[in-house]
Amino acid sequence: MQLLKDKILNEGRYLGNGILKVDSFMNHQIDPVLMRQIGEEIARRFQDQKPTRILTAESSGIAPSLATALVLGVPVVYARKQQPVTMNDGAFRAKSESHTFKKDVELIVSSQYLTKADRILIIDDFLATARTIVALVDLVKESGATLVGIGAVIEKSFEGGREKLVPLGVQVESLARIKSFENDRPEFL
Amino acid sequence: MQLLKDKILNEGRYLGNGILKVDSFMNHQIDPVLMRQIGEEIARRFQDQKPTRILTAESSGIAPSLATALVLGVPVVYARKQQPVTMNDGAFRAKSESHTFKKDVELIVSSQYLTKADRILIIDDFLATARTIVALVDLVKESGATLVGIGAVIEKSFEGGREKLVPLGVQVESLARIKSFENDRPEFL
Repeated sequence: MQLLKDKILNEGRYLGNGILKVDSFMNHQIDPVLMRQIGEEIARRFQDQKPTRILTAESSGIAPSLATALVLGVPVVYARKQQPVTMNDGAFRAKSESHTFKKDVELIVSSQYLTKADRILIIDDFLATARTIVALVDLVKESGATLVGIGAVIEKSFEGGREKLVPLGVQVESLARIKSFENDRPEFL
Repeated sequence: MQLLKDKILNEGRYLGNGILKVDSFMNHQIDPVLMRQIGEEIARRFQDQKPTRILTAESSGIAPSLATALVLGVPVVYARKQQPVTMNDGAFRAKSESHTFKKDVELIVSSQYLTKADRILIIDDFLATARTIVALVDLVKESGATLVGIGAVIEKSFEGGREKLVPLGVQVESLARIKSFENDRPEFL
């Protein structure tokens, strides 16, 4: 996706240790033109899988997931990292670890929003080590739903996340794949 | 907004103490048809104020803000409740208190995304006691930007939040106003 790559090149900032700051258009401020295109592109790539629900994790996964959901016409469920007082029924839980907050997190989804009949498309902002995505996959497995695909906006292919997802045998897509940083500048695959 | 009121009546659950659970369509699962309409309606009500940015708080404010941003064509900035490692520049901070997590929270926004030249529309999921919204207003004041409006999806008018916002002298809108719960059923204004 050219607009996304241009945004990464022009506005992304490499902070070292594999961390790319994309706060100006995706993870703190959201560019509406870019986000609409992201949703359209993820929807186009997965529409043949006929997902019935999109699963993501708060907070950074919500925008690309909603943009995709508006095109596909299916609901988004976002896993919570803390249990609100309103989440008072049965829930699926999976442990993960946050790259950007440097701590363990638990992802929690109400069991009524992941059912055996569902075909789940997982979406997240980054595919890097895939820790968050693997936790989302665990939630899908626990629910008995069918996982039909995994989509990420930006992939850092040098962190090995995709290799962890290949054994799942589902379609894995990312819209911009960074293979390395050379002089703090991303090189795309 | 009739579709929203119908959703609240059919799917909302009153948990007592003024807490309305809307997890099935807004705060955990997001209904894409409803959320698109919410965005269109908030955009319609505030387009004459010519906002240049939308300000909200993670996580529940992101969906209605993005839906509105897609119509208005302006960026969304969502205040963080924890500082990610990527947020390494100057930031505005304001204290709030979470209804649904029963604890104090700090809202943090990178100072580069709220500027003196901005016309800010604040959007949140609920207008209840207005604690979160008042904290967002504090961030706008700190930045020197101009506040041009405050929009909420659901208002619980019996919690007095609107009264705190009136002195600001800006347009305040909510799409469904609940004046009370009678036998656990919401009564709309």
